[in-house]
Amino acid sequence: MPSLSGYKAELDYSYAPGIFPAMECLLARPERVRRVLLHSGAAGREGTEKLCALAREKGIRVEEADRALARISGKENCYAAAVFEKFEDAPDPEKPHVVLHNPGDSGNVGTILRTALGLGIEDVALVRPCVDLFDPKTVRASMGSLFRLRVKVYNTFGEYRTAFPDRALYPFMLDASVPLREAVKNKPDTWTLVFGNEGRGLPKEFAAYGQAVRIESNDKVDSLNLGIAAGIGMYQFMI
Amino acid sequence: MPSLSGYKAELDYSYAPGIFPAMECLLARPERVRRVLLHSGAAGREGTEKLCALAREKGIRVEEADRALARISGKENCYAAAVFEKFEDAPDPEKPHVVLHNPGDSGNVGTILRTALGLGIEDVALVRPCVDLFDPKTVRASMGSLFRLRVKVYNTFGEYRTAFPDRALYPFMLDASVPLREAVKNKPDTWTLVFGNEGRGLPKEFAAYGQAVRIESNDKVDSLNLGIAAGIGMYQFMI
Repeated sequence: MPSLSGYKAELDYSYAPGIFPAMECLLARPERVRRVLLHSGAAGREGTEKLCALAREKGIRVEEADRALARISGKENCYAAAVFEKFEDAPDPEKPHVVLHNPGDSGNVGTILRTALGLGIEDVALVRPCVDLFDPKTVRASMGSLFRLRVKVYNTFGEYRTAFPDRALYPFMLDASVPLREAVKNKPDTWTLVFGNEGRGLPKEFAAYGQAVRIESNDKVDSLNLGIAAGIGMYQFMI
Repeated sequence: MPSLSGYKAELDYSYAPGIFPAMECLLARPERVRRVLLHSGAAGREGTEKLCALAREKGIRVEEADRALARISGKENCYAAAVFEKFEDAPDPEKPHVVLHNPGDSGNVGTILRTALGLGIEDVALVRPCVDLFDPKTVRASMGSLFRLRVKVYNTFGEYRTAFPDRALYPFMLDASVPLREAVKNKPDTWTLVFGNEGRGLPKEFAAYGQAVRIESNDKVDSLNLGIAAGIGMYQFMI
């Protein structure tokens, strides 16, 4: 590994910045962690000792790396980071899925991962072009939820559909005729919620792929924020 | 008005940055608009002509102000802004309310305002200490929804309660015993949803102020993001 560079998408490793996300990485994916970076000012902070003890227990090296941490986290304070190898898990065909089609904002994706895990959806697919799932910004926004999910990035939506041909798909679209409250009444055991890009939504043809669903917002706003729409959809389907 | 300064909280005016938020400001609060700032590169952009025509119709001055726009919007491109006088409307006692107690992130507040309007909640209160409701970042994140809402900032929660003594309050708290799906079944005609700070949530004593509500997320995440929690809560109560 080239020592202490900032993050780049083409690398086979990334960073989980922040004490809590780093801890989640060590707890959920210890076999993926190469080392833990610690800031010289981290001593005495909440969680630092726990993180170091956990690293020791798992045989993971901890090193002081103030400059590397500054490079990874940009403006924000960052007292620790886990350096981890990127991973990929195929979604479980028996479980509910969320597919994010062409998401463009890493904060949104991270927040949606966190919401999915909290509401019990553990299988998430992204469809390219999309933000980098392993960008430290995504990892941070997910608060480390990423490490507890099965996540996979597909080149096209067709690739996902080929892998899971028989699932009930629910594309969320502004002009769908079936409201969410109705759609959820007849849901089968396994299903996939599909959400489009922040600005453009889903392409028109997605309406033919399954039961298109509309969240019942009024026309005083042009749409809800992607993370909010996904949160409302996941809650209705799961709880 | 001192000419073309950046935004400061102590001023009696602020900026609605972006063509769409500026348009919303002119449509919903024309009497508050002092002028419209336009970037020299805005000609030919979607919405520019409509914005200028609307300003003309309302008798509002439009001026080219590239440097002022750069100062207001920071890194982001910004082709137009409305300069507006700050306002305040008491919430309507007959309508549903959302109260944000000590919110610390202007993006969250803006997103919640947008979600509230889209789901039909038009009365929002903030309780200090909190982010500046009129910070251009809040206005932008709200996509201009701010101008279509009755919004008021209170110094304390007690001040809000004194103004609306008989309302059913629903504080959203992680350790509440009543799940959202249950709470919503017995809701009265008018009610107030109360959401706490991003990191700390609501102070313990809020549980005694009304029917504390818990969103049914699992313990794999420590909490949901504030905007998501508010979105889920508002959807359940409104739709």
